[in-house]
Amino acid sequence: MPVTSTPSTPARPLADMAGVAKVLDSGHPNFKKGDLVWGITGWEEYSLLSATKALFKIQHTDVPLSHYTGILGMPGMTAYAGFYEVCSPKKGEYVFISAASGAVGQLVGQFAKLLGCYVVGSAGSKDKVDMLKNKFGFDEAFNYKEEADLDAALKRYFPEGIDIYFENVGGRMLDAVLLNMRNHCRIAACGMISQYNLEQHEGVHNLMNLIPKQARIGGFLAPDYHHKYPQFLELVLPYIKEGKITYVEDIAEGLESGPAALVGLFTGRNIGKQLVVVARNE
Amino acid sequence: MPVTSTPSTPARPLADMAGVAKVLDSGHPNFKKGDLVWGITGWEEYSLLSATKALFKIQHTDVPLSHYTGILGMPGMTAYAGFYEVCSPKKGEYVFISAASGAVGQLVGQFAKLLGCYVVGSAGSKDKVDMLKNKFGFDEAFNYKEEADLDAALKRYFPEGIDIYFENVGGRMLDAVLLNMRNHCRIAACGMISQYNLEQHEGVHNLMNLIPKQARIGGFLAPDYHHKYPQFLELVLPYIKEGKITYVEDIAEGLESGPAALVGLFTGRNIGKQLVVVARNE
Repeated sequence: MPVTSTPSTPARPLADMAGVAKVLDSGHPNFKKGDLVWGITGWEEYSLLSATKALFKIQHTDVPLSHYTGILGMPGMTAYAGFYEVCSPKKGEYVFISAASGAVGQLVGQFAKLLGCYVVGSAGSKDKVDMLKNKFGFDEAFNYKEEADLDAALKRYFPEGIDIYFENVGGRMLDAVLLNMRNHCRIAACGMISQYNLEQHEGVHNLMNLIPKQARIGGFLAPDYHHKYPQFLELVLPYIKEGKITYVEDIAEGLESGPAALVGLFTGRNIGKQLVVVARNE
Repeated sequence: MPVTSTPSTPARPLADMAGVAKVLDSGHPNFKKGDLVWGITGWEEYSLLSATKALFKIQHTDVPLSHYTGILGMPGMTAYAGFYEVCSPKKGEYVFISAASGAVGQLVGQFAKLLGCYVVGSAGSKDKVDMLKNKFGFDEAFNYKEEADLDAALKRYFPEGIDIYFENVGGRMLDAVLLNMRNHCRIAACGMISQYNLEQHEGVHNLMNLIPKQARIGGFLAPDYHHKYPQFLELVLPYIKEGKITYVEDIAEGLESGPAALVGLFTGRNIGKQLVVVARNE
Protein backbone atom coordinates (compact mmCIF):
# COMPACT_ATOMS: atom_id res chain seq x y z
CA MET A 1 0.00 0.00 0.00
CA PRO A 2 2.62 2.52 -0.98
CA VAL A 3 2.33 6.29 -0.82
CA THR A 4 4.79 7.19 -3.52
CA SER A 5 6.43 10.33 -4.80
CA THR A 6 7.97 11.37 -8.06
CA PRO A 7 11.75 11.18 -8.17
CA SER A 8 13.96 14.24 -8.20
CA THR A 9 15.67 13.21 -11.41
CA PRO A 10 13.47 11.44 -13.93
CA ALA A 11 16.17 9.09 -15.07
CA ARG A 12 13.99 5.99 -15.11
CA PRO A 13 10.48 7.26 -14.47
CA LEU A 14 8.93 3.86 -14.94
CA ALA A 15 11.36 2.07 -12.70
CA ASP A 16 12.84 3.27 -9.41
CA MET A 17 11.43 6.09 -7.35
CA ALA A 18 11.17 7.19 -3.74
CA GLY A 19 8.17 5.86 -1.88
CA VAL A 20 6.63 4.64 1.33
CA ALA A 21 5.33 1.09 1.52
CA LYS A 22 4.08 -1.58 3.89
CA VAL A 23 5.80 -4.96 3.94
CA LEU A 24 3.41 -7.73 2.94
CA ASP A 25 5.97 -10.49 3.03
CA SER A 26 9.72 -10.60 3.59
CA GLY A 27 12.62 -12.98 3.28
CA HIS A 28 15.02 -10.42 4.74
CA PRO A 29 15.85 -10.62 8.44
CA ASN A 30 15.63 -6.82 8.92
CA PHE A 31 12.10 -6.51 7.55
CA LYS A 32 8.95 -8.35 8.61
CA LYS A 33 5.30 -8.36 7.58
CA GLY A 34 3.56 -5.17 8.65
CA ASP A 35 6.72 -3.05 8.79
CA LEU A 36 6.47 0.37 7.21
CA VAL A 37 9.44 1.33 5.07
CA TRP A 38 10.64 4.25 2.99
CA GLY A 39 13.20 4.26 0.21
CA ILE A 40 13.50 3.23 -3.40
CA THR A 41 10.31 1.47 -4.45
CA GLY A 42 8.46 1.45 -7.78
CA TRP A 43 5.71 3.14 -9.79
CA GLU A 44 3.33 0.31 -8.98
CA GLU A 45 0.87 -0.96 -6.39
CA TYR A 46 2.89 -3.98 -5.34
CA SER A 47 6.67 -4.15 -5.51
CA LEU A 48 9.22 -6.89 -5.14
CA LEU A 49 12.17 -5.10 -3.58
CA SER A 50 15.60 -6.65 -3.48
CA ALA A 51 17.70 -3.49 -3.11
CA THR A 52 17.24 -3.31 0.65
CA LYS A 53 20.25 -1.05 1.06
CA ALA A 54 18.04 1.80 -0.09
CA LEU A 55 15.16 0.82 2.22
CA PHE A 56 14.66 2.22 5.73
CA LYS A 57 12.28 0.95 8.38
CA ILE A 58 9.98 3.70 9.64
CA GLN A 59 10.36 3.99 13.41
CA HIS A 60 8.27 7.09 14.10
CA THR A 61 4.62 6.87 13.05
CA ASP A 62 3.34 9.87 14.99
CA VAL A 63 3.90 12.03 11.90
CA PRO A 64 2.14 11.67 8.52
CA LEU A 65 3.60 8.69 6.64
CA SER A 66 3.73 10.74 3.47
CA HIS A 67 6.47 12.79 5.18
CA TYR A 68 8.81 9.85 4.56
CA THR A 69 8.70 10.59 0.84
CA GLY A 70 9.73 14.14 1.68
CA ILE A 71 10.80 15.92 4.81
CA LEU A 72 11.73 12.67 6.59
CA GLY A 73 12.90 10.85 3.47
CA MET A 74 15.24 11.56 0.60
CA PRO A 75 14.34 15.26 0.10
CA GLY A 76 14.83 15.88 3.82
CA MET A 77 18.16 14.10 3.83
CA THR A 78 19.11 15.99 0.67
CA ALA A 79 18.34 19.35 2.29
CA TYR A 80 20.16 18.33 5.46
CA ALA A 81 23.26 16.95 3.72
CA GLY A 82 23.49 19.78 1.22
CA PHE A 83 23.00 22.55 3.73
CA TYR A 84 24.72 21.27 6.86
CA GLU A 85 27.35 18.91 5.44
CA VAL A 86 28.28 20.51 2.12
CA CYS A 87 27.88 24.18 3.11
CA SER A 88 28.94 24.24 6.81
CA PRO A 89 26.61 27.18 7.48
CA LYS A 90 27.06 29.74 10.21
CA LYS A 91 24.53 31.98 11.94
CA GLY A 92 24.06 35.29 10.18
CA GLU A 93 25.21 34.13 6.75
CA TYR A 94 23.49 35.17 3.53
CA VAL A 95 21.75 32.19 1.92
CA PHE A 96 20.18 31.97 -1.51
CA ILE A 97 18.07 29.04 -2.70
CA SER A 98 16.77 28.47 -6.21
CA ALA A 99 13.65 26.39 -6.93
CA ALA A 100 13.06 27.30 -3.30
CA SER A 101 9.44 26.17 -3.08
CA GLY A 102 10.32 22.62 -4.11
CA ALA A 103 10.56 19.65 -1.80
CA VAL A 104 14.19 20.31 -0.93
CA GLY A 105 14.36 24.09 -1.24
CA GLN A 106 11.57 24.81 1.23
CA LEU A 107 13.40 22.73 3.85
CA VAL A 108 16.80 24.29 3.22
CA GLY A 109 15.28 27.73 3.65
CA GLN A 110 13.67 26.78 6.95
CA PHE A 111 16.83 25.09 8.23
CA ALA A 112 18.70 28.29 7.37
CA LYS A 113 16.14 30.50 9.10
CA LEU A 114 16.20 28.28 12.21
CA LEU A 115 19.99 28.69 12.26
CA GLY A 116 19.70 32.49 12.08
CA CYS A 117 20.65 33.12 8.45
CA TYR A 118 19.26 35.71 6.04
CA VAL A 119 17.38 33.69 3.42
CA VAL A 120 16.18 34.56 -0.06
CA GLY A 121 14.54 32.14 -2.48
CA SER A 122 13.67 32.20 -6.14
CA ALA A 123 10.70 30.45 -7.69
CA GLY A 124 8.67 30.58 -10.90
CA SER A 125 5.26 31.98 -9.95
CA LYS A 126 3.66 34.61 -7.75
CA ASP A 127 1.95 31.92 -5.66
CA LYS A 128 5.26 30.23 -4.95
CA VAL A 129 6.94 33.50 -4.08
CA ASP A 130 4.09 34.35 -1.69
CA MET A 131 4.39 30.94 -0.10
CA LEU A 132 8.13 31.37 0.44
CA LYS A 133 7.63 34.65 2.24
CA ASN A 134 4.39 33.99 4.08
CA LYS A 135 4.38 30.28 4.75
CA PHE A 136 8.05 29.32 4.99
CA GLY A 137 9.30 32.55 6.53
CA PHE A 138 11.97 33.42 3.96
CA ASP A 139 13.24 36.98 4.38
CA GLU A 140 12.72 37.66 0.69
CA ALA A 141 11.70 35.82 -2.46
CA PHE A 142 11.40 36.66 -6.13
CA ASN A 143 9.95 35.27 -9.34
CA TYR A 144 12.89 34.61 -11.63
CA LYS A 145 10.60 34.73 -14.67
CA GLU A 146 9.98 38.41 -13.98
CA GLU A 147 13.67 39.27 -13.77
CA ALA A 148 15.27 40.05 -17.11
CA ASP A 149 18.62 40.53 -15.35
CA LEU A 150 19.26 37.90 -12.68
CA ASP A 151 22.54 39.54 -11.71
CA ALA A 152 20.69 42.78 -10.92
CA ALA A 153 18.04 40.85 -8.98
CA LEU A 154 20.67 39.17 -6.82
CA LYS A 155 22.45 42.48 -6.24
CA ARG A 156 19.14 43.89 -5.03
CA TYR A 157 18.55 41.11 -2.52
CA PHE A 158 22.19 40.56 -1.59
CA PRO A 159 23.92 43.96 -1.65
CA GLU A 160 26.72 42.38 0.41
CA GLY A 161 26.83 39.17 -1.59
CA ILE A 162 25.98 35.52 -1.04
CA ASP A 163 27.67 33.18 1.45
CA ILE A 164 25.73 30.03 0.56
CA TYR A 165 23.89 29.11 -2.60
CA PHE A 166 21.75 26.00 -2.65
CA GLU A 167 21.68 25.20 -6.36
CA ASN A 168 18.67 23.46 -7.83
CA VAL A 169 18.45 24.97 -11.30
CA GLY A 170 21.83 25.59 -12.99
CA GLY A 171 22.37 27.63 -16.14
CA ARG A 172 22.00 31.39 -16.05
CA MET A 173 20.99 31.48 -12.38
CA LEU A 174 24.29 29.84 -11.44
CA ASP A 175 26.10 32.32 -13.67
CA ALA A 176 24.43 35.22 -11.87
CA VAL A 177 25.29 33.78 -8.45
CA LEU A 178 28.94 33.48 -9.52
CA LEU A 179 28.91 37.27 -9.96
CA ASN A 180 27.54 37.83 -6.45
CA MET A 181 29.63 35.64 -4.17
CA ARG A 182 31.20 36.73 -0.94
CA ASN A 183 34.64 35.41 -0.06
CA HIS A 184 34.58 31.70 0.74
CA CYS A 185 31.12 31.28 -0.78
CA ARG A 186 29.88 27.69 -0.81
CA ILE A 187 27.59 26.37 -3.51
CA ALA A 188 25.88 23.04 -2.91
CA ALA A 189 24.92 21.62 -6.29
CA CYS A 190 21.82 19.55 -5.65
CA GLY A 191 20.15 19.71 -9.05
CA MET A 192 20.17 21.72 -12.25
CA ILE A 193 16.58 21.23 -13.39
CA SER A 194 16.71 24.05 -15.95
CA GLN A 195 19.23 21.92 -17.86
CA TYR A 196 17.82 18.40 -17.73
CA ASN A 197 15.77 18.55 -20.89
CA LEU A 198 18.11 20.69 -22.99
CA GLU A 199 19.94 18.97 -25.81
CA GLN A 200 22.98 21.17 -25.19
CA HIS A 201 23.42 22.44 -21.67
CA GLU A 202 23.75 26.19 -21.30
CA GLY A 203 27.27 27.48 -20.86
CA VAL A 204 28.29 28.89 -17.49
CA HIS A 205 30.65 31.80 -18.07
CA ASN A 206 31.66 33.15 -14.68
CA LEU A 207 33.44 30.22 -13.06
CA MET A 208 36.66 32.22 -12.98
CA ASN A 209 35.22 34.17 -10.05
CA LEU A 210 35.63 31.07 -7.91
CA ILE A 211 39.33 31.90 -7.70
CA PRO A 212 39.43 35.45 -6.32
CA LYS A 213 36.45 34.62 -4.08
CA GLN A 214 38.07 31.39 -2.88
CA ALA A 215 34.68 29.84 -3.40
CA ARG A 216 33.59 26.32 -4.13
CA ILE A 217 30.88 24.31 -5.85
CA GLY A 218 30.25 20.84 -4.49
CA GLY A 219 27.95 18.28 -6.03
CA PHE A 220 26.44 15.76 -3.65
CA LEU A 221 23.98 12.89 -3.42
CA ALA A 222 21.96 12.27 -0.29
CA PRO A 223 22.64 8.49 -0.14
CA ASP A 224 26.28 9.35 0.59
CA TYR A 225 25.06 10.67 3.93
CA HIS A 226 22.72 7.84 4.95
CA HIS A 227 24.83 7.20 8.04
CA LYS A 228 23.72 10.63 9.27
CA TYR A 229 20.02 9.72 9.19
CA PRO A 230 19.73 9.30 12.99
CA GLN A 231 21.26 12.76 13.63
CA PHE A 232 18.96 14.16 10.98
CA LEU A 233 15.85 12.71 12.68
CA GLU A 234 17.05 14.06 16.01
CA LEU A 235 17.12 17.55 14.52
CA VAL A 236 13.99 17.45 12.40
CA LEU A 237 11.41 15.41 14.34
CA PRO A 238 11.23 17.97 17.18
CA TYR A 239 10.95 20.79 14.63
CA ILE A 240 7.98 19.02 13.02
CA LYS A 241 6.26 18.20 16.30
CA GLU A 242 6.77 21.73 17.65
CA GLY A 243 5.46 23.21 14.42
CA LYS A 244 8.72 25.01 13.72
CA ILE A 245 8.95 23.57 10.23
CA THR A 246 6.21 23.80 7.65
CA TYR A 247 6.15 21.23 4.90
CA VAL A 248 3.95 21.46 1.81
CA GLU A 249 2.92 18.46 -0.22
CA ASP A 250 1.17 18.46 -3.56
CA ILE A 251 -0.85 15.27 -3.65
CA ALA A 252 -1.99 13.62 -6.85
CA GLU A 253 -4.52 10.86 -6.30
CA GLY A 254 -4.04 7.48 -7.93
CA LEU A 255 -1.24 5.82 -9.81
CA GLU A 256 -2.84 6.90 -13.09
CA SER A 257 -2.12 10.54 -12.19
CA GLY A 258 1.61 9.82 -11.98
CA PRO A 259 2.71 10.70 -15.53
CA ALA A 260 0.94 14.09 -15.47
CA ALA A 261 2.39 14.82 -12.03
CA LEU A 262 5.86 14.00 -13.30
CA VAL A 263 5.53 16.21 -16.36
CA GLY A 264 4.20 18.98 -14.11
CA LEU A 265 7.56 19.17 -12.32
CA PHE A 266 9.13 20.47 -15.52
CA THR A 267 6.51 23.12 -16.15
CA GLY A 268 6.46 24.23 -12.51
CA ARG A 269 2.83 23.21 -11.96
CA ASN A 270 3.36 21.61 -8.55
CA ILE A 271 3.62 23.56 -5.30
CA GLY A 272 5.74 21.72 -2.75
CA LYS A 273 6.71 18.10 -2.82
CA GLN A 274 4.85 16.25 -5.56
CA LEU A 275 3.33 13.01 -4.28
CA VAL A 276 1.32 10.34 -5.98
CA VAL A 277 -0.92 8.44 -3.58
CA VAL A 278 -1.25 4.86 -4.71
CA ALA A 279 -2.94 3.68 -1.54
CA ARG A 280 -3.36 4.83 2.05
CA ASN A 281 -2.26 2.88 5.13
CA GLU A 282 -5.26 1.31 6.86
CA MET B 1 68.62 44.54 -5.77
CA PRO B 2 65.50 42.61 -6.52
CA VAL B 3 65.24 39.46 -8.60
CA THR B 4 61.67 39.78 -9.72
CA SER B 5 59.17 37.58 -11.45
CA THR B 6 56.04 38.21 -13.49
CA PRO B 7 52.80 37.81 -11.58
CA SER B 8 50.45 34.89 -12.14
CA THR B 9 47.54 37.19 -12.92
CA PRO B 10 48.40 40.36 -14.79
CA ALA B 11 45.91 42.47 -12.90
CA ARG B 12 48.25 45.42 -12.42
CA PRO B 13 51.37 44.58 -14.38
CA LEU B 14 52.97 47.90 -13.71
CA ALA B 15 52.31 47.84 -10.01
CA ASP B 16 52.48 44.86 -7.67
CA MET B 17 54.28 41.65 -8.47
CA ALA B 18 56.11 38.85 -6.73
CA GLY B 19 59.80 39.44 -6.20
CA VAL B 20 62.90 38.97 -4.12
CA ALA B 21 64.66 42.03 -2.71
CA LYS B 22 67.30 43.16 -0.26
CA VAL B 23 66.36 45.67 2.43
CA LEU B 24 68.33 48.89 2.05
CA ASP B 25 66.61 50.72 4.87
CA SER B 26 63.69 49.90 7.14
CA GLY B 27 61.43 51.59 9.64
CA HIS B 28 59.70 48.30 10.46
CA PRO B 29 60.86 46.32 13.50
CA ASN B 30 60.69 42.97 11.67
CA PHE B 31 63.01 44.01 8.84
CA LYS B 32 66.50 45.47 9.00
CA LYS B 33 69.11 46.62 6.50
CA GLY B 34 70.65 43.68 4.68
CA ASP B 35 67.68 41.32 5.17
CA LEU B 36 66.60 39.39 2.13
CA VAL B 37 62.86 39.26 1.61
CA TRP B 38 60.35 37.77 -0.81
CA GLY B 39 56.79 38.83 -1.45
CA ILE B 40 54.91 41.57 -3.23
CA THR B 41 57.41 44.09 -4.57
CA GLY B 42 57.32 46.20 -7.74
CA TRP B 43 58.43 46.32 -11.37
CA GLU B 44 61.30 48.60 -10.49
CA GLU B 45 64.88 48.70 -9.24
CA TYR B 46 64.12 50.30 -5.89
CA SER B 47 60.84 49.93 -4.06
CA LEU B 48 59.25 51.60 -1.09
CA LEU B 49 57.24 48.80 0.49
CA SER B 50 54.57 49.48 3.07
CA ALA B 51 52.48 46.32 2.65
CA THR B 52 54.74 44.23 4.89
CA LYS B 53 51.99 41.66 5.44
CA ALA B 54 52.89 40.26 2.03
CA LEU B 55 56.63 40.28 2.74
CA PHE B 56 58.57 37.35 4.15
CA LYS B 57 62.11 37.35 5.47
CA ILE B 58 64.28 34.76 3.73
CA GLN B 59 65.76 32.42 6.34
CA HIS B 60 67.40 29.83 4.12
CA THR B 61 70.05 31.16 1.73
CA ASP B 62 71.64 27.83 0.81
CA VAL B 63 69.31 27.61 -2.19
CA PRO B 64 69.18 30.00 -5.19
CA LEU B 65 67.50 33.24 -4.15
CA SER B 66 65.49 33.22 -7.37
CA HIS B 67 63.67 30.17 -5.96
CA TYR B 68 61.83 32.56 -3.65
CA THR B 69 59.97 33.97 -6.63
CA GLY B 70 58.97 30.41 -7.48
CA ILE B 71 59.30 27.09 -5.79
CA LEU B 72 59.89 28.68 -2.36
CA GLY B 73 57.63 31.68 -2.94
CA MET B 74 54.11 32.25 -4.13
CA PRO B 75 54.05 29.60 -6.92
CA GLY B 76 55.38 27.02 -4.47
CA MET B 77 52.81 27.95 -1.86
CA THR B 78 50.13 27.93 -4.57
CA ALA B 79 51.07 24.40 -5.65
CA TYR B 80 51.23 23.26 -2.04
CA ALA B 81 47.94 24.86 -0.96
CA GLY B 82 46.05 23.81 -4.08
CA PHE B 83 47.29 20.24 -4.09
CA TYR B 84 47.55 19.35 -0.41
CA GLU B 85 44.98 21.64 1.18
CA VAL B 86 42.29 21.96 -1.50
CA CYS B 87 42.54 18.46 -2.99
CA SER B 88 43.45 16.27 0.02
CA PRO B 89 45.32 13.84 -2.25
CA LYS B 90 45.88 10.18 -1.52
CA LYS B 91 48.54 7.79 -2.78
CA GLY B 92 47.54 6.07 -6.01
CA GLU B 93 45.06 8.68 -7.16
CA TYR B 94 44.79 9.83 -10.78
CA VAL B 95 45.96 13.43 -11.13
CA PHE B 96 45.65 15.70 -14.14
CA ILE B 97 47.34 19.11 -14.41
CA SER B 98 46.80 21.67 -17.15
CA ALA B 99 49.44 24.26 -18.05
CA ALA B 100 51.60 21.67 -16.34
CA SER B 101 54.97 23.04 -17.37
CA GLY B 102 54.27 26.39 -15.72
CA ALA B 103 55.66 27.57 -12.42
CA VAL B 104 52.89 25.99 -10.40
CA GLY B 105 51.99 23.00 -12.56
CA GLN B 106 55.50 21.53 -12.64
CA LEU B 107 55.53 21.55 -8.83
CA VAL B 108 52.07 20.07 -8.41
CA GLY B 109 53.06 17.22 -10.72
CA GLN B 110 56.19 16.50 -8.75
CA PHE B 111 54.38 16.70 -5.40
CA ALA B 112 51.85 14.23 -6.80
CA LYS B 113 54.56 11.85 -8.05
CA LEU B 114 56.38 12.02 -4.70
CA LEU B 115 53.10 11.06 -3.03
CA GLY B 116 52.67 8.06 -5.34
CA CYS B 117 49.97 9.32 -7.69
CA TYR B 118 49.57 8.69 -11.43
CA VAL B 119 50.21 12.06 -13.05
CA VAL B 120 49.39 13.42 -16.50
CA GLY B 121 49.98 16.97 -17.66
CA SER B 122 48.90 19.03 -20.63
CA ALA B 123 50.95 21.78 -22.20
CA GLY B 124 51.09 23.71 -25.45
CA SER B 125 54.27 22.58 -27.23
CA LYS B 126 56.31 19.48 -27.94
CA ASP B 127 59.21 20.86 -25.89
CA LYS B 128 57.01 21.34 -22.88
CA VAL B 129 55.49 17.90 -23.22
CA ASP B 130 58.96 16.37 -23.43
CA MET B 131 60.02 18.30 -20.36
CA LEU B 132 57.03 17.06 -18.38
CA LYS B 133 57.83 13.46 -19.18
CA ASN B 134 61.61 13.53 -19.15
CA LYS B 135 62.52 16.23 -16.69
CA PHE B 136 59.65 16.32 -14.21
CA GLY B 137 58.83 12.61 -14.28
CA PHE B 138 55.15 12.87 -15.19
CA ASP B 139 53.71 9.48 -16.20
CA GLU B 140 52.25 10.99 -19.36
CA ALA B 141 51.85 14.37 -21.02
CA PHE B 142 50.17 15.69 -24.13
CA ASN B 143 50.04 18.80 -26.29
CA TYR B 144 46.49 20.11 -26.06
CA LYS B 145 46.95 21.99 -29.33
CA GLU B 146 47.24 18.67 -31.14
CA GLU B 147 44.05 17.26 -29.64
CA ALA B 148 40.91 18.16 -31.56
CA ASP B 149 38.84 16.29 -28.98
CA LEU B 150 40.02 16.93 -25.42
CA ASP B 151 37.43 14.54 -24.02
CA ALA B 152 38.89 11.73 -26.14
CA ALA B 153 42.41 12.70 -25.07
CA LEU B 154 41.50 12.51 -21.39
CA LYS B 155 39.73 9.18 -21.91
CA ARG B 156 42.94 7.88 -23.47
CA TYR B 157 45.13 8.95 -20.54
CA PHE B 158 42.55 8.32 -17.82
CA PRO B 159 40.50 5.27 -18.83
CA GLU B 160 39.38 5.01 -15.21
CA GLY B 161 38.79 8.75 -14.78
CA ILE B 162 40.37 11.59 -12.87
CA ASP B 163 40.51 11.93 -9.08
CA ILE B 164 42.21 15.32 -8.94
CA TYR B 165 42.39 18.08 -11.53
CA PHE B 166 44.68 21.01 -10.94
CA GLU B 167 43.03 23.68 -13.07
CA ASN B 168 45.16 26.38 -14.63
CA VAL B 169 43.40 27.02 -17.93
CA GLY B 170 39.58 26.89 -17.75
CA GLY B 171 37.24 26.82 -20.74
CA ARG B 172 37.03 23.70 -22.88
CA MET B 173 39.67 21.81 -20.91
CA LEU B 174 37.58 22.15 -17.77
CA ASP B 175 34.55 21.02 -19.74
CA ALA B 176 36.42 17.91 -20.89
CA VAL B 177 37.58 17.13 -17.34
CA LEU B 178 33.98 17.38 -16.12
CA LEU B 179 33.19 14.48 -18.48
CA ASN B 180 36.00 12.35 -17.04
CA MET B 181 35.69 12.61 -13.29
CA ARG B 182 35.75 9.72 -10.88
CA ASN B 183 33.43 9.81 -7.88
CA HIS B 184 34.45 12.47 -5.37
CA CYS B 185 36.76 14.15 -7.89
CA ARG B 186 38.35 17.33 -6.58
CA ILE B 187 39.20 20.24 -8.85
CA ALA B 188 41.47 22.95 -7.49
CA ALA B 189 40.86 26.10 -9.51
CA CYS B 190 44.15 27.94 -9.49
CA GLY B 191 43.87 29.91 -12.72
CA MET B 192 41.97 29.97 -15.99
CA ILE B 193 44.54 31.54 -18.26
CA SER B 194 42.73 30.57 -21.48
CA GLN B 195 39.97 32.96 -20.39
CA TYR B 196 41.78 36.04 -19.10
CA ASN B 197 41.94 37.94 -22.33
CA LEU B 198 38.58 36.92 -23.77
CA GLU B 199 35.89 39.57 -23.88
CA GLN B 200 33.25 36.95 -23.16
CA HIS B 201 34.43 33.91 -21.23
CA GLU B 202 33.76 30.56 -22.82
CA GLY B 203 30.76 28.70 -21.49
CA VAL B 204 31.31 25.56 -19.44
CA HIS B 205 28.57 23.08 -20.24
CA ASN B 206 29.15 19.99 -18.15
CA LEU B 207 28.89 21.28 -14.58
CA MET B 208 25.86 19.07 -14.02
CA ASN B 209 28.22 16.11 -13.77
CA LEU B 210 29.41 17.46 -10.44
CA ILE B 211 26.22 16.09 -8.92
CA PRO B 212 26.26 12.37 -9.84
CA LYS B 213 30.03 12.32 -9.32
CA GLN B 214 29.75 14.11 -5.96
CA ALA B 215 32.64 16.19 -7.15
CA ARG B 216 33.76 19.68 -6.29
CA ILE B 217 35.55 22.69 -7.72
CA GLY B 218 37.29 24.94 -5.25
CA GLY B 219 38.90 28.26 -6.05
CA PHE B 220 41.78 29.30 -3.82
CA LEU B 221 44.45 31.93 -3.32
CA ALA B 222 47.80 31.09 -1.83
CA PRO B 223 47.88 34.03 0.64
CA ASP B 224 45.00 32.36 2.47
CA TYR B 225 47.48 29.66 3.45
CA HIS B 226 50.42 31.82 4.52
CA HIS B 227 50.23 30.38 8.03
CA LYS B 228 51.25 27.04 6.47
CA TYR B 229 54.53 28.42 5.10
CA PRO B 230 56.70 26.78 7.79
CA GLN B 231 55.16 23.32 7.11
CA PHE B 232 55.62 23.95 3.41
CA LEU B 233 59.34 24.73 3.82
CA GLU B 234 59.75 21.64 5.97
CA LEU B 235 58.39 19.53 3.11
CA VAL B 236 60.05 21.25 0.18
CA LEU B 237 63.55 22.30 1.32
CA PRO B 238 64.69 18.68 1.81
CA TYR B 239 63.23 17.76 -1.59
CA ILE B 240 65.26 20.56 -3.20
CA LYS B 241 68.49 19.75 -1.36
CA GLU B 242 68.17 16.02 -2.06
CA GLY B 243 67.45 16.74 -5.73
CA LYS B 244 64.05 15.11 -5.57
CA ILE B 245 62.35 18.13 -7.08
CA THR B 246 63.40 19.77 -10.32
CA TYR B 247 62.51 23.37 -10.85
CA VAL B 248 62.82 25.20 -14.16
CA GLU B 249 63.17 28.94 -14.43
CA ASP B 250 63.02 31.01 -17.59
CA ILE B 251 65.20 34.02 -16.93
CA ALA B 252 64.85 37.30 -18.80
CA GLU B 253 67.71 39.69 -18.16
CA GLY B 254 67.02 43.29 -17.24
CA LEU B 255 63.92 45.22 -16.25
CA GLU B 256 63.51 46.33 -19.86
CA SER B 257 62.80 42.71 -20.86
CA GLY B 258 59.80 42.62 -18.49
CA PRO B 259 56.98 43.61 -20.85
CA ALA B 260 58.01 41.05 -23.50
CA ALA B 261 58.35 38.37 -20.82
CA LEU B 262 54.88 39.17 -19.54
CA VAL B 263 53.33 39.03 -23.00
CA GLY B 264 55.15 35.76 -23.60
CA LEU B 265 53.12 34.10 -20.82
CA PHE B 266 50.00 34.46 -22.94
CA THR B 267 51.53 33.03 -26.08
CA GLY B 268 53.21 30.19 -24.21
CA ARG B 269 56.72 31.33 -25.07
CA ASN B 270 58.20 30.72 -21.62
CA ILE B 271 59.28 27.33 -20.32
CA GLY B 272 58.99 27.14 -16.55
CA LYS B 273 58.69 30.03 -14.17
CA GLN B 274 59.23 33.33 -15.96
CA LEU B 275 61.66 35.56 -14.09
CA VAL B 276 62.96 39.01 -14.80
CA VAL B 277 66.35 39.66 -13.23
CA VAL B 278 66.64 43.29 -12.25
CA ALA B 279 69.82 42.85 -10.26
CA ARG B 280 71.79 40.02 -8.63
CA ASN B 281 72.67 39.82 -4.94
CA GLU B 282 76.32 40.67 -4.36
